[in-house]
Amino acid sequence: MGEFTIAVLSGDGIGPEVMRQAIRILRTIERLYGHTFALKEALVGGAAYDAHQCHLPQETIDVCEAADAILFGSVGGPVTAQNDPKWKDAEKTALLGLRKRFGLGVNLRPSVIYPFLAHLCPLKHEIIKDGVDMLIVRELVGGIYFGKHQTDGDKAIDVMEYTVDQIERPLRFAFEAARMRRHKKVTVVDKANVLDTSRLWRRVANDMKDKYPDVQLEFMYVDNAAMQLIQHPSSFSVMATENMFGDILSDAASVLPGSLGLMPSASLGDRIHMYEPAGGSAPDIAGQNKANPIAQILSAALMLRYSFHLDAEAQLIERAVQNVLEAGKRTGDLTHQGESAVTTDAMGEAIAAEM
Amino acid sequence: MGEFTIAVLSGDGIGPEVMRQAIRILRTIERLYGHTFALKEALVGGAAYDAHQCHLPQETIDVCEAADAILFGSVGGPVTAQNDPKWKDAEKTALLGLRKRFGLGVNLRPSVIYPFLAHLCPLKHEIIKDGVDMLIVRELVGGIYFGKHQTDGDKAIDVMEYTVDQIERPLRFAFEAARMRRHKKVTVVDKANVLDTSRLWRRVANDMKDKYPDVQLEFMYVDNAAMQLIQHPSSFSVMATENMFGDILSDAASVLPGSLGLMPSASLGDRIHMYEPAGGSAPDIAGQNKANPIAQILSAALMLRYSFHLDAEAQLIERAVQNVLEAGKRTGDLTHQGESAVTTDAMGEAIAAEM
Ligand SMILES: CC(C)[C@H](C(=O)O)[C@@H](O)C(=O)O
Ligand SMILES: CC(C)[C@H](C(=O)O)[C@@H](O)C(=O)O
Repeated sequence: MGEFTIAVLSGDGIGPEVMRQAIRILRTIERLYGHTFALKEALVGGAAYDAHQCHLPQETIDVCEAADAILFGSVGGPVTAQNDPKWKDAEKTALLGLRKRFGLGVNLRPSVIYPFLAHLCPLKHEIIKDGVDMLIVRELVGGIYFGKHQTDGDKAIDVMEYTVDQIERPLRFAFEAARMRRHKKVTVVDKANVLDTSRLWRRVANDMKDKYPDVQLEFMYVDNAAMQLIQHPSSFSVMATENMFGDILSDAASVLPGSLGLMPSASLGDRIHMYEPAGGSAPDIAGQNKANPIAQILSAALMLRYSFHLDAEAQLIERAVQNVLEAGKRTGDLTHQGESAVTTDAMGEAIAAEM
Repeated sequence: MGEFTIAVLSGDGIGPEVMRQAIRILRTIERLYGHTFALKEALVGGAAYDAHQCHLPQETIDVCEAADAILFGSVGGPVTAQNDPKWKDAEKTALLGLRKRFGLGVNLRPSVIYPFLAHLCPLKHEIIKDGVDMLIVRELVGGIYFGKHQTDGDKAIDVMEYTVDQIERPLRFAFEAARMRRHKKVTVVDKANVLDTSRLWRRVANDMKDKYPDVQLEFMYVDNAAMQLIQHPSSFSVMATENMFGDILSDAASVLPGSLGLMPSASLGDRIHMYEPAGGSAPDIAGQNKANPIAQILSAALMLRYSFHLDAEAQLIERAVQNVLEAGKRTGDLTHQGESAVTTDAMGEAIAAEM
């Protein structure tokens, strides 16, 4: 029986309502296993801006600092209000700020197509009939998003930079993860025919591979990987890549399971890790009790696994989600041909009951 | 009746055999319209390496220099022989060399799903039922592929750089192209929430848009664009973007029509333009008379249109290709459920006969 402190950053849009369901699930775990989760709420994004004129206030950082893990909702305003100071750069400031502050250098995005939701996949049945079960490991605090940016009159530059140290962490995680999977393969995605940083990634991967003789290592150019994701998604097991390629490919992969509302993510840091749904704040449906809480709930499950080493508890949640989906319960994003939708609350309740 | 000199760079793998069919089509155009095409063959890639120990010999550059257009096949060796000096960096050296030498700054990749081949698209029918007809305009001689690359012990950098001048050319082309299309829209794809170069692209696009009041301009982040390409490909008309994003997205888009063997491309330069299939040299099927020559033939059609302003002639070719496909003729890459395949030769012959 453990005691854990969780910084809860619900944020904007559907963030608070899906977070409520994740909390319901955490409370269920407390009851079933006798753990104690101390939940510390803190403001982030537009919600923080209203109170502090800033998207990532120091108080929020302090709360995270004192916690064992960060459970993040979503941040950002309506597309039409992006120039409003409340929303301008809100997502970027909050996310990049947290990533940098806590060294969240390894981003994990599992992409699994549930057989009973395969009809929601945009790809044809033949393509996914062997199943899709991949894990994208994205480096998250290096590369061009964190390099020097400079504009000088009519000229602009952005610098992509990597050191061996920065590359080792995500690659090591990718090898370790691959070793525990059915298909023990790591695909390093790069543009090594053109970029020096990509060649450095290859060097580090090649230096590391002898420690993982049970894992097959392959390299793939990013343009090819973008094609393979659409044509042969079953061929991937673990994909490891730098920040920007990972941004693009993990978003492409995230549409395969049929709804972003199913997709959790974890960002592993130096000491503390952060967990958040892959989707955004969806302001258009916020407050209507119709968002899918599953991505947030599965993010909480990843937190139990990676931050608290509560693997059985994480599995209980994951199985409950699967059973509820398999039994036909659907939020609006998952309905198909006249199926009826349940509310955010009802979905959370059903998952808790199933546990 | 015009006279035109064409540098013919067939290259490696299936290059020579599909080029023969493109030449057959050009000869047909000569006969039908009385034009004269002077074809100047020159070596490139592995083929050039055998003769000159170099993938892009000066003789080849001279031939291109003296021509009115470059018709390019494909370059590159088997995956397993990439370290053989004949193949090492062959594609990169040849392509980047030609792009730089001739300032091929505007790359055009049309992506059209033919209704009678829609069953080959990896996406579900519902997703493409409104048709897919997009043109990707990729900047081709700037950005991170042409910036400074440097490795220093355990650290590497690559620099993404853009000037207003470099951005104007592809964007102007995108606006002009959009204006002539059914759906008059340009989607500029970038990562303007993070990159300074992206913000410069937005500035140039915004400065330009008043000259094209009939064209709708929208901006989209590259991660979102990767999702939309899979979920809503019909929503795009003209997509304009920088070199690397264009590399990734145009390859993703190129699988939608069902075979790379259908996909032509054009790269517009300062004075001379180059035309090539989107696919590669496919060494595994080279010399077997089974490659699809259509991408090469449609590349020749684009050459007639953009370099020689022979629009009727280009349309004749494009219509002949469509008719032959609609009539059920298929190379191996296009067959489905027991359909039988014709040879490269037979496909070229059928298209010529149809004209
Ligand atoms: C907000 C943005 C900077 C961020 C990124 O691209 O890193 C987001 O798109 C993500 O993927 O989490
Ligand atoms: C060979 C390589 C450098 C090239 C590129 O990415 O520009 C190729 O992938 C292409 O897209 O034409």
